[in-house]
Amino acid sequence: MIIKRLAHVPSTDMAGHGDISKQIVIGPDDESKEIVLRYFKVAPGGSSPYHDHDFPHLVKVEIGEGAVIDPEGNEHPVGPGDYVYVPNNEIRCFKNTHTGRESLEFICIVPGRGEG
Amino acid sequence: MIIKRLAHVPSTDMAGHGDISKQIVIGPDDESKEIVLRYFKVAPGGSSPYHDHDFPHLVKVEIGEGAVIDPEGNEHPVGPGDYVYVPNNEIRCFKNTHTGRESLEFICIVPGRGEG
Repeated sequence: MIIKRLAHVPSTDMAGHGDISKQIVIGPDDESKEIVLRYFKVAPGGSSPYHDHDFPHLVKVEIGEGAVIDPEGNEHPVGPGDYVYVPNNEIRCFKNTHTGRESLEFICIVPGRGEG
Repeated sequence: MIIKRLAHVPSTDMAGHGDISKQIVIGPDDESKEIVLRYFKVAPGGSSPYHDHDFPHLVKVEIGEGAVIDPEGNEHPVGPGDYVYVPNNEIRCFKNTHTGRESLEFICIVPGRGEG
């Protein structure tokens, strides 16, 4: 069993991805090959890439104000405590809509093949 | 895409499991067959069953004070913001150690075969 706090997990800047940082909180380095739990921070004005994958995403928003952009381009507001399920192959992105300086932060869980 | 809040997810009492309630926040009813995200509330003095499974658990503690009991019976304190990875087939339980009336609440993510 492994117990961790976010503050102790290395963070990676995702260059070219709109001021996003990623932390792999539980993943292959912990021998968790089947499911990977990541933590993203998106700077104000930034967003995750608008694309799809052949795997699902399970998201929980932790901090901030944001929107999920759906396949039709519509924005769905999300905030702390919202859970989002994005099925395989559905295009979407997560955008920080805060007008101030607050990050949008969320947990994003994917199958092992989604991280690597 | 599905957006949900915890308050709108039905809760099930797990009789005989130490005053635990479970909510399937994202799961088969949402067509999420590969990964399932559950939310547990354990009453003071209660604990999850001390057992193992042939699948991993990824846990994030949300509220309360608790301990994870490891295969040797040792208690590891956990609280809000702690992430716990329990590999396949490792015996463990989550116990509410709060001396007052606060629930221990945590997210627990498992593969689809772990929920059904």
